[in-house]
Parts: sequence; structure tokens; C-alpha cells
Amino acid sequence: MVRFKSRSMTIAFATQTGLTHEDIDEGAVFAPRFDAAGLVTAVAVDANGGRVLMVGHMNAEALAKTLETGEVHYWSRSRQKLWKKGETSGEIQKLVEMRTDCDQDVVLLTVEQTGRGAACHTGRHSCFYRRVVVSDGAASLADTGEPRLFDPKQVYGG
Amino acid sequence: MVRFKSRSMTIAFATQTGLTHEDIDEGAVFAPRFDAAGLVTAVAVDANGGRVLMVGHMNAEALAKTLETGEVHYWSRSRQKLWKKGETSGEIQKLVEMRTDCDQDVVLLTVEQTGRGAACHTGRHSCFYRRVVVSDGAASLADTGEPRLFDPKQVYGG
Repeated sequence: MVRFKSRSMTIAFATQTGLTHEDIDEGAVFAPRFDAAGLVTAVAVDANGGRVLMVGHMNAEALAKTLETGEVHYWSRSRQKLWKKGETSGEIQKLVEMRTDCDQDVVLLTVEQTGRGAACHTGRHSCFYRRVVVSDGAASLADTGEPRLFDPKQVYGG
Repeated sequence: MVRFKSRSMTIAFATQTGLTHEDIDEGAVFAPRFDAAGLVTAVAVDANGGRVLMVGHMNAEALAKTLETGEVHYWSRSRQKLWKKGETSGEIQKLVEMRTDCDQDVVLLTVEQTGRGAACHTGRHSCFYRRVVVSDGAASLADTGEPRLFDPKQVYGG
């Protein structure tokens, strides 16, 4: 059992040790399958329309904080720290629902994207603003024209 | 440049070496950021309704095969082999569109889920059939009642 205490409450979830495939796939025990780096994949979709906004990662602490506060926290692999989404940009994600998949190595977050509605650090609503196109045997990217909802230089500096 | 040859065609995509953050985030060069295991995360959503069906992984070969054939191939981490989705179950995913995210470590696949419409090995349409619920400080899973579209014992044996 992994357990996190905080000011307000404690969130506990199980480890997969000792669980059968059947337990993991069909059971009521939430036992996230953290990878070697201690992370699960987190896919955030917009509660308003269901579009995929972004994909991040969560360690046990980020998962617990998200469930505890109702605001989405990720683990930043580039900065190697807990990252409350929107802490700098104001683009906080309010958790509407969390699901997990059959083998419990992914969580699917349905979120209300607050602020200007930009989940992406480039200022766009979704991180998926480019389409992969193949021409003459080479793959390249085509911008879909998704508008910026903020200027990243103003928000993050630089 | 990573290049795959096959009977029908060659798919080439770039490596991130030498590219700036600006190139990667905003450019037209498709340079997937493979992790230490040589994988990108692949999120499959249903072309019919946009629901998230499953999350898998792709190595360069799986990515190239998917673009080349229009049928989704993943890398199976458990079996350590290329895996054409539906090769056993018949639940092939036809690629409608592929997108990538800002830092190019995720691909978003819009797919037509063929067969009985079951992306999940448990026979369900989506792998995300359980909701995480918190009660008395413990997280557990609640089944959402998503029906099975096939019997996994009949399809996979066992």
C-alpha cells in the first residue's frame, strides 16, 4: 500500500504485488503500474468536447495530489519535480473524472481546462496541433492552424 | 534520419539531434522523441465519437509500418515484439489521422476500430472502463458497466 498524507487528507492506493492478471484487469483495487521511473502515463481530455489536450506523467505523489485537491498535478520529467499544471501560466486543470486502463499503467483524466483554455505551453488549446503527413516516402508535419490563446513569451518570459 | 524500407515504400523521419526547441515545437520536421527504450507513446482515439480507446507504444518500426500500411502497429513491451493491432483478435485499427504533440514524444492516432469494435483485450470498446473513486482516503475502481463485445477466452484461448 502506497499512502500519502497531507494537510487535508490521505490518499492510499495498492501496489500490484500479489495481484493476479484478473485482479488487475477486472477488479476494484486501484493498483497503478508505475514504470521503472515510478511513473504512469496521464492523458488529459477536455470535459467540454472530449478532445485530447495533452499527455503527461504522474508519479504516486502527483496522482495522490490530483485526487486530493481536484486539480491536476503531473511529474515534470524535464525538471524532475512535482508540477501543478497551471502554476505558472494559470491554466489549471480541474479534474472531472479519472479512469484507468486494463493493466493500470495509464490514467485518463477528464478535465475542465481553466484560464484561457490553453493546455499547451505554446499557448494552444491542445498540444496536438500538427498532423503527420507522408509524401514521397518522408514523413513531415503540417500545422492545423490551431490559434494561440496566449503568448508564451509573455507567460513564461524569454 | 531514420529510414525504413519495405516491399512497398520507405518512410523516413528525422532525429531530434541538432534541432532547436523552436524547430521541435513549431516546425514541419517530424522528429519523434523516442525514449531510452526507443519508444513513443501512442494514444488511439475513435474516429467515430473521439473517445480514447487505448494507449500503447511505438518504436520507429511500428511508427513507419503504421504510416506505410494505414493499419496501426504497436511495440508490445510485454512480448518485446512488433504487434499489428488485431493480428489475433481481428480488431484492426485503420489509421485516419496521426498527429504529434509539441515535443514530439507522443502520437495521437485517430482510428477506425474495425472488427467488433473492441480495442481492449478484455473485449471492451475502450480500455478505460473503470473510474477511480476516493472514499475515506482510499482510491478504488468502479466499473462503468461497459459491455464486452467479444469473449477474450474464445479469442485468445486460455
